[in-house]
Amino acid sequence: MSKNESMYKISKFAAPEFIFGIDSIDYVKRYIKNFSLTHPMVVTDSGLLSASWAKNIFKQLEGIDIRYSIYDKVSENPKDYEVEEISKVIINCNCDSIIAIGGGSVIDAAKAGGIMCANPGSIRDYEGIDKIVHPMPPIICVPTTCGSSADVSQFAIITNTDERYKMAIVSKSLLPDISIIDPKTLTTLPKELLIATSLDALTHAFESYVSLGSSPITDMFALKAIRLIFETLPKVAKDPKNINYLEDLMLASLMAGMAFSNASLGMVHAIAHSMGGYKDIRHGTCNAILLDSVIDFNYVYAAYRYDKISESLGYVLEDLNEIDRKKILIESIMNLKNKIGFNITLKDLQIKESEIDIIAKHAVNDPCMLTNPVMPTFEEVKEFIARNI
Amino acid sequence: MSKNESMYKISKFAAPEFIFGIDSIDYVKRYIKNFSLTHPMVVTDSGLLSASWAKNIFKQLEGIDIRYSIYDKVSENPKDYEVEEISKVIINCNCDSIIAIGGGSVIDAAKAGGIMCANPGSIRDYEGIDKIVHPMPPIICVPTTCGSSADVSQFAIITNTDERYKMAIVSKSLLPDISIIDPKTLTTLPKELLIATSLDALTHAFESYVSLGSSPITDMFALKAIRLIFETLPKVAKDPKNINYLEDLMLASLMAGMAFSNASLGMVHAIAHSMGGYKDIRHGTCNAILLDSVIDFNYVYAAYRYDKISESLGYVLEDLNEIDRKKILIESIMNLKNKIGFNITLKDLQIKESEIDIIAKHAVNDPCMLTNPVMPTFEEVKEFIARNI
Ligand SMILES: [Mn+2]
Ligand SMILES: [Mn+2]
Repeated sequence: MSKNESMYKISKFAAPEFIFGIDSIDYVKRYIKNFSLTHPMVVTDSGLLSASWAKNIFKQLEGIDIRYSIYDKVSENPKDYEVEEISKVIINCNCDSIIAIGGGSVIDAAKAGGIMCANPGSIRDYEGIDKIVHPMPPIICVPTTCGSSADVSQFAIITNTDERYKMAIVSKSLLPDISIIDPKTLTTLPKELLIATSLDALTHAFESYVSLGSSPITDMFALKAIRLIFETLPKVAKDPKNINYLEDLMLASLMAGMAFSNASLGMVHAIAHSMGGYKDIRHGTCNAILLDSVIDFNYVYAAYRYDKISESLGYVLEDLNEIDRKKILIESIMNLKNKIGFNITLKDLQIKESEIDIIAKHAVNDPCMLTNPVMPTFEEVKEFIARNI
Repeated sequence: MSKNESMYKISKFAAPEFIFGIDSIDYVKRYIKNFSLTHPMVVTDSGLLSASWAKNIFKQLEGIDIRYSIYDKVSENPKDYEVEEISKVIINCNCDSIIAIGGGSVIDAAKAGGIMCANPGSIRDYEGIDKIVHPMPPIICVPTTCGSSADVSQFAIITNTDERYKMAIVSKSLLPDISIIDPKTLTTLPKELLIATSLDALTHAFESYVSLGSSPITDMFALKAIRLIFETLPKVAKDPKNINYLEDLMLASLMAGMAFSNASLGMVHAIAHSMGGYKDIRHGTCNAILLDSVIDFNYVYAAYRYDKISESLGYVLEDLNEIDRKKILIESIMNLKNKIGFNITLKDLQIKESEIDIIAKHAVNDPCMLTNPVMPTFEEVKEFIARNI
C-alpha cells in the first residue's frame, strides 16, 4: 500500500439505461430499431411462452420483420455447462444480439452466455470481481420476477457443477444495454414465486445497506426498497393480481438491484449461494430463511446500521438497549413472513450434518463475504449453520 | 396520436457511470488506462489551473506518460462559435478523448464540442430532444461546481449568439463515459459562486420534482437533494471551506442532476435560459431569482406536488388552505436566501420594458417548458416578467 492512507470513503456507481412502467414492453420494437439490431437470440424459459404479454413481444418483432431464435431450456439455477451451450447456440445462429426474457436465472444465463461469446476459456475463469476483459454483444433484458434484478446488476450467478456451489461473477460489463421493466409480466407469476423473489429483493436491500461497500446513493435505494416491500407484500399476498401492488414490488426490486449492484452483498448470499448451489434450492427461499439469523449474527458488528433500517420502518428505538433493538428488527421480519404465509425454516431443507463443512468452506470464499459487516471465521460459519438446521 | 391512450405512466432513466468521494480524482489515471486512451484534450478554464487538486491531475497524466493538450478559453455562458472552435482544435490535435474539468459551462462546451466532432453541420441543428445521431469520443468529466451537474445530465446548454438565447440540446449521447466527482474541487470555489451554483442545483431538484416527466426514482433524488441543500447551505455560508459540507453539496448536486436529466425541467429554466442568454447573466443567479415567483405562478397547477416538498422539509400543512401552503413554501425559500445572504432580485438585473417580448418568446419555445406543470401562454409569460422586474 502506497505512502499514506486516508479514510474518506470513495464509492462507484453504475446502472444500465432502463425503461419502467406498465405497458413498457411495447417499447421493445423501438429499441430493436434504435440499436439497429437485426437478429436477436431470445433467451427465456418455456413456462413463459403462453403468457399474453409474451405473445405481444413476438408480435412486435414480427411487426417490424425481425427474425429471431429462441433458447428456452434455462434451469432454475443455471449451471456452467448451460452457459457453454448458450454461447455456442448464439454463435451458430449468427445472432447479433440477445433478448433475455425471464427471472434471475434466465438473465444470469443470458449474460454469462453473452460474455462467453466474446471472452475465451470457460465461465469459471471469470469468477470474482472485475475479471472480464471484452464486452458482450448488445443485450436487452425483460425481467419477469421482482427479485434478483439481474437486469440492472453487475452480477452473474452461475453454478459450478463440479464443486456444486454458485459462483459470483462481478463486472461492469455484465450490465445490459437496456432493461425493459414492465410490472404486467408479474401477473402470471404464481403467488408462491412472487413472494419468494420479493423476499430475495428484500435481502438485497438489507445486505447492501449494511455492506461495507455502501454509499449514500445505494443507502437511499435500499431503504426505499425495504419500506416498499414491507408495505406491499402483505397486501399482495391477499390480492396477487392487483397491478398496482405488482408495480410497487417491481419498483422495489429495481432499486434493491441498483443498491446491491453497487454496494455488493454479505453473508446471507454467501451462504445462500453455497447452500443453494450444493442442494439446488430456490434462491429466494434460502435468503428468506437465512435473513433473520444472519442479522442475529451480524448485529453487534453493525448495530447502528441495522438500527437505521428499523427506524425507517417506523420503530422508535430511543430507550431500548441493543438486545431489544435486535429483537425488534428480527421480529418485524418474522411478522412479515408469517403475515404472507412464508413459514419454511432451515430444518425443512433437510441439510445433513455431514454437508456443513463443504457448505461453510464455499461460503467463506464467496466474494459477497468480503463486504459483510464482519469477516466470520470458518469455524463460526460451520457453527452458525449447525445451530440453525 | 394512435387509437387509444391508457394512462399508466412510463418513465425512462439513464445515468453515466460515476465515482464519488473526497480524493476520488486520484482515479483519473486509472480510467485513462482502463479506456486505454492515449491523447486526451483537457477542456477547462484558466482560473482553475492554479489549484492544488488541478496540478495533481496533470501530475497523474505525466506519471503514466500520457501526452495532453489544453483548451482553457471557455466563457461563463458558452456560445455556439466556441463549440465550433473546440471541435476544430480537438480534431487538429488528433485527440482521441476529452477530459472536461470545470463547471456547467466548461462541461457543456466540452460535450457539445465532442458531439460536433462526430456529427455534421452546426450545434444549432441539434437543438431540442433526441436529435443527435452519432456518439462522441470517450469523455471524462471532473465537475468543479455543485450546481449544473452537466457531468451526469443528457443536457447541453449553448448560447445561440444570433438570437441571444440559450439552446437546450437534450440527448442520451451527451452522457459522459465517466464522471469523477471530488468535493475537494470546491475548496477553491469562491463563496459567492458556491452559493449561486447550489441554488441552481436546488432549482433542478424543484423543477424535476413538479415536472410532468417525473418518476418515482427522480422524485427520490429530487427530494433528497432539496433536503440536503436546505440543511447544508446555511452552514456552508458560515464555513465555506469545510470539506464535510462541500461533500454534501456535491452529493445534492449529483442527485439533482440525475433527477432533472431524466425528468427534465420547467418554467424557471425556460425563462432563465432566455433571460440569461439575452442578458448574459450568471445562470444560477437567474434561477435563484426566479424560483419563488415561478412557484407563485405554478402552484395552483401542481399544488399537491409542491406540498410534498414542503412536507418533506418538515412543515405540517394539514389545516392550512392552499394560499397559506403556498406562502409557507415561498417563505422557506426566501428565508434560505437571506440566511445565506443572497439578496439579488430581478430588479437588480435592469431588464428594460422593451426586452420583455423577446425574452418571453424564447421562453415559451424552450423545451423545458413542455414539462412545466402548466403550459403558460405567451401573454402570461410577458405579464409574469413585467410583474417582477
Ligand atoms: Mn439474490
Ligand atoms: Mn440549471
